[in-house]
Amino acid sequence: MGHSEKQFEDRVIIVGVGLIGGSIAAAVRERFPKSAVIGVGRSEDRLRAAMEAGLLTEWATECSVELMQGKTIVVVCLPVHLIADQVLSIASVAHDGVLITDAGSVKAAVCSAIQECEIAARLFIGSHPIAGGENGGFEHAEAGLFESKVCVVSQINSATPGSDRLERVSQFWRELGCDVTEMSPEKHDHILALTSHLPHVMAAVTTTAVGHEHLALTGSGFRDTTRIASGNAALWRAILAGNRGEVISAIRLAEDLLCKYRVALQQEEDGKVEALLDAAVKCRSQLGSESVD
Amino acid sequence: MGHSEKQFEDRVIIVGVGLIGGSIAAAVRERFPKSAVIGVGRSEDRLRAAMEAGLLTEWATECSVELMQGKTIVVVCLPVHLIADQVLSIASVAHDGVLITDAGSVKAAVCSAIQECEIAARLFIGSHPIAGGENGGFEHAEAGLFESKVCVVSQINSATPGSDRLERVSQFWRELGCDVTEMSPEKHDHILALTSHLPHVMAAVTTTAVGHEHLALTGSGFRDTTRIASGNAALWRAILAGNRGEVISAIRLAEDLLCKYRVALQQEEDGKVEALLDAAVKCRSQLGSESVD
Repeated sequence: MGHSEKQFEDRVIIVGVGLIGGSIAAAVRERFPKSAVIGVGRSEDRLRAAMEAGLLTEWATECSVELMQGKTIVVVCLPVHLIADQVLSIASVAHDGVLITDAGSVKAAVCSAIQECEIAARLFIGSHPIAGGENGGFEHAEAGLFESKVCVVSQINSATPGSDRLERVSQFWRELGCDVTEMSPEKHDHILALTSHLPHVMAAVTTTAVGHEHLALTGSGFRDTTRIASGNAALWRAILAGNRGEVISAIRLAEDLLCKYRVALQQEEDGKVEALLDAAVKCRSQLGSESVD
Repeated sequence: MGHSEKQFEDRVIIVGVGLIGGSIAAAVRERFPKSAVIGVGRSEDRLRAAMEAGLLTEWATECSVELMQGKTIVVVCLPVHLIADQVLSIASVAHDGVLITDAGSVKAAVCSAIQECEIAARLFIGSHPIAGGENGGFEHAEAGLFESKVCVVSQINSATPGSDRLERVSQFWRELGCDVTEMSPEKHDHILALTSHLPHVMAAVTTTAVGHEHLALTGSGFRDTTRIASGNAALWRAILAGNRGEVISAIRLAEDLLCKYRVALQQEEDGKVEALLDAAVKCRSQLGSESVD
């Protein structure tokens, strides 16, 4: 691995110690035992439990100025609708050397809210490690969750001279095992609407179409296809609403594609059905079949 | 287990030794070593290879009358559009003690074609073990594939006195590990359109919406959600076309549900979005999350 202790953060503050925050904590604890890992959250009981589980070296119920000594990164791992306000509040007390980032599935709305505040805009780089699972809570945290996963990093305004922060946040995620790629918040949201947000809606629709009474006649294909539909509804509401325009376009695209299948079947153009299926086979075959979670 | 050797079939003839046919062979070989397991197919090379793999005790390129000595069950494991013709052809040479069944994902069209022929209608009971995988070929066969899986059995005409055959075919699948349930071909096709055929189309649409260029930004959720989309396009064309009316209705239902999500997002009725998601969570939570294949 070759972790470079000297260049790593002295303090990693994690605001929101759930599955993602807890996994970041676990990865830092494992790879950089000299760094402080500080959990920030509302529930003292939960933070105490996370500390007892070995994920944290300290905890607090507020991200106060005292916590941000030395080279500090703050990773806001809250539901997407809470990220911007939290970043603004942290930025208002942070010194200039602090790097603030997040781990949210939506970037444009978050970045544009943060851009309103000059200080916050300077300290913040958006991040989205594409990793997770349908079971929330730090109890499911894994130090290896980010291994070989892509992490997108997004600058609020690529014109501002924030490139040292961009490199610093990229290095942070690389040290946790990620492959880092940079793109604009808008491009991120356009792509993730298709690769993550639409699949969630599709899995939910597939589940609802079956309903409770027919679950007994489902097989392993249905089980896999709908696994993500058990993800927390409030979190996903915030994600879909936070990327509203792109998600609406992605759903419309799926409606158009379904309509193509339906019309081809109605008109008994079965060759067209096969061509549609075959295009999906060719695309899907570029990924492996093993479930990695 | 308590396999009852005496009551089991003397000969199991498998027409089409692919993933399903090969797994039936493997299960019979493992549990009933005294029974002959005879593979029937077009390719001598493939049949020879399946025999060398230990799946078969004999093979032939035609299901001739000589093969059907003693208590014989013939399981037609062909793509759904080929099942009825094959059953009719086997029935024309079979003696009265032969039981013919299949393993297809579509029942009504198959049963109604077979019903046209009185002899075939007497010998045939439809079966659908709900088990499989996206990788075809007997190389992926597993003796345990049917363990704890549901197998639907369907009588062509429940008014005909075929109940001993119904019990015999049920017993056959139970001996391979299945939970057997009986229902009409029409009810089977209505339910499977929702639990299997629609999910396949949804997975294909989800894959196509992403396309080749964005696959790098997919995570484990996308991978699971679209795994079945790599299933053979020609086989699935036959299944969708073979259950045309029910699949069209199921696709229309999915389009309606997607439209509900889209309109709720467009009208910023995010509470409605959460309610839709939550209904899916509640339904999906009745199944476990582990991937069983």
